[in-house]
Amino acid sequence: MSASTTSLLLGNQTHLPSLKSQSLLRLTKPLSIRCAASSTPTERVINFAAGPAALPENVLLKAQSDLYNWRGSGMSVMEMSHRGKEFLSIIQKAESDLRRLLHIPPDYSVLFLQGGATTQFAALPLNLCNPEDPVDYLVTGSWGDKAFKEAQKYCNPKVVWSGKAEKYTKVPSFDGFEQNPHAKYLHLCANETIHGVEFKDYPVPKNPNGVLIADMSSNFCSKPVDVSKFGVIYAGAQKNVGPSGVTIVIIRKDLIGNAQDVTPVMLDYKIHDENSSLYNTPPCFGIYMCGLVFDDLLAQGGLKEVERKNQRKAKILYDAIDESRGFFRCPVEKSVRSLMNVPFTLEKAELEGEFIKEAAKEKMVQLKGHRSVGGMRASIYNAMPLAGVEKLVAFMKEFQARHA
Amino acid sequence: MSASTTSLLLGNQTHLPSLKSQSLLRLTKPLSIRCAASSTPTERVINFAAGPAALPENVLLKAQSDLYNWRGSGMSVMEMSHRGKEFLSIIQKAESDLRRLLHIPPDYSVLFLQGGATTQFAALPLNLCNPEDPVDYLVTGSWGDKAFKEAQKYCNPKVVWSGKAEKYTKVPSFDGFEQNPHAKYLHLCANETIHGVEFKDYPVPKNPNGVLIADMSSNFCSKPVDVSKFGVIYAGAQKNVGPSGVTIVIIRKDLIGNAQDVTPVMLDYKIHDENSSLYNTPPCFGIYMCGLVFDDLLAQGGLKEVERKNQRKAKILYDAIDESRGFFRCPVEKSVRSLMNVPFTLEKAELEGEFIKEAAKEKMVQLKGHRSVGGMRASIYNAMPLAGVEKLVAFMKEFQARHA
Repeated sequence: MSASTTSLLLGNQTHLPSLKSQSLLRLTKPLSIRCAASSTPTERVINFAAGPAALPENVLLKAQSDLYNWRGSGMSVMEMSHRGKEFLSIIQKAESDLRRLLHIPPDYSVLFLQGGATTQFAALPLNLCNPEDPVDYLVTGSWGDKAFKEAQKYCNPKVVWSGKAEKYTKVPSFDGFEQNPHAKYLHLCANETIHGVEFKDYPVPKNPNGVLIADMSSNFCSKPVDVSKFGVIYAGAQKNVGPSGVTIVIIRKDLIGNAQDVTPVMLDYKIHDENSSLYNTPPCFGIYMCGLVFDDLLAQGGLKEVERKNQRKAKILYDAIDESRGFFRCPVEKSVRSLMNVPFTLEKAELEGEFIKEAAKEKMVQLKGHRSVGGMRASIYNAMPLAGVEKLVAFMKEFQARHA
Repeated sequence: MSASTTSLLLGNQTHLPSLKSQSLLRLTKPLSIRCAASSTPTERVINFAAGPAALPENVLLKAQSDLYNWRGSGMSVMEMSHRGKEFLSIIQKAESDLRRLLHIPPDYSVLFLQGGATTQFAALPLNLCNPEDPVDYLVTGSWGDKAFKEAQKYCNPKVVWSGKAEKYTKVPSFDGFEQNPHAKYLHLCANETIHGVEFKDYPVPKNPNGVLIADMSSNFCSKPVDVSKFGVIYAGAQKNVGPSGVTIVIIRKDLIGNAQDVTPVMLDYKIHDENSSLYNTPPCFGIYMCGLVFDDLLAQGGLKEVERKNQRKAKILYDAIDESRGFFRCPVEKSVRSLMNVPFTLEKAELEGEFIKEAAKEKMVQLKGHRSVGGMRASIYNAMPLAGVEKLVAFMKEFQARHA
């Protein structure tokens, strides 16, 4: 599929930026340009993908308007030296906005890294443990399980609770598992993207010198979090806060500096902390995009307001499932259902293919469940508008009426 | 610096895409829209940055036009599931175009990874060696030195030649160093970005079962390369082929599958090879940008033609230095001067600050040498137009006339 043989090279709408600055020409409406070759205007889809996932439209439009020439600098963000004043202003503002959003205490470092949460599965034990150190893992889904397995290479991890036997539909009660009193850390995945199971509160490590560590990849910045409860919070950006290729690590500073000898330099938190995430060339454009999202979340009123919106979206979707008299089913225990990823099945499983196909015709895409569990999954991250969920719910009711 | 307090939010020109497809409306000229708040149109700078570096203008304009809605898909590339058909078409075309550009033999895998060349400094010995295995390093600059130091953690590396005593201005003659006949590999940095030293030909490993490995970060796709001479070629994208955050590894398939036990899963070539670079979420937008660049390089006529252009650009700049009667000086031995990175100094070192300042006034930016060596450096990667180098040369002559 080379550029010259593809029939449709671009979307039919080229939007000009909507500007916040009062001093500039204000374009209140996007300029719409219809392509001659296409008879219908191309709309944006309603994207229920689990990640990479929908980004806020105003963020995309701003990135588009600045892509060729960022703020009159004469270059794209992608062309900037990572040590130049332009990019430094971008990464510093991104960090400071994230600190405001999450009220990150000053004794925590914020690192912008690469390699996804999967790289952190190794970096965490490599940086925080000696090979013989015990650590505890709560496994409430596939991601927690992967984190545990990777840790086996570098320390002495134990699964202190697993939801596998119940197909990862639960979170344990905090007195329902036994922690090793010497565990260097207790690890959990705050929101299991595949299974739709989310911690609503967090256990406290039994070891007074141990720390709690959370993979927040799929619910990062979806609600307020008390960072001080954690030793490390980490997240791939590509669900709620940016494109793939950026991993954010928030780590209490006293935990930095004890990496094992076999730690690759790029997995050593000390190196990145000492160099303000600029030891090597960081994923500059991705960090820039995260910064635009942080700015947007602050403009929305911060994470309390964002959580309120996410609760409302999730409620109408879970209500639609629960009120369908079993036509739709969500296997997850009600008290720990994710605000971000809503897995559901059809009582008549043979209709699932049709459900997904018809939804796609209505521009609702990526509703297929993860290949490991099947069924459907609607991921409704921050950037999913309420109207998108409302449209899905209306479609579900209409589909049920036709097939009940 | 929040969006609302910034005085200039976007460049003054919003370009509409120029299209290749004959079937679509052809916009031969970019539409130029002047911002009311600014009196002068914002031009692009001539960007001599060493990386991240200039990207081809047509590639940026295409990315800009497609950013909000890629080819009518209803979403940005940044929003696509990495397992969806849209992104699969992007990564598959990127790989196939790269294979065409470099004539990569079928027994080589192409991997799109994260973490920069620095991550590969660890991944290479972890994947190719046991801890006791000897390997040889040719050190012709800072990057080769860093690669050697990282390898010390995972195998038994030896520097078989170093240019350090001569301030990294040379490449050894191929009989001027002694290889270990049992070395698993011989490693070199094909182009030292900081010092401007480039291999014009490559030595052959003495061990018939050993392989040659090259870090080609800063001259990747700048000229044809006989891939079959190498076991592994690797490169960070952010010099010649894309934005930062993508690392490309070209590896002979029989070298895959022997990673040491302590290898983080994300550094294991086998995992990425088996999963076609989709084991975890890859840096999708960066890979997309690389694909646009590969497409552009093919459209230019391939790497032979690209090399011809690069030779012409480099020649006029080195000629200007050599013909300045010592006013400008390039310390690198003539036969191994880089086509990509041209370091130079002024005879009157006290004028260097003024040179850089005056050049910036003429929109020529990022000419300052690396902080470790000082002086000036003009990086003239593929995307630097001949006119940019001509403008620099004209400025150099004019500057010399004023200060000689």
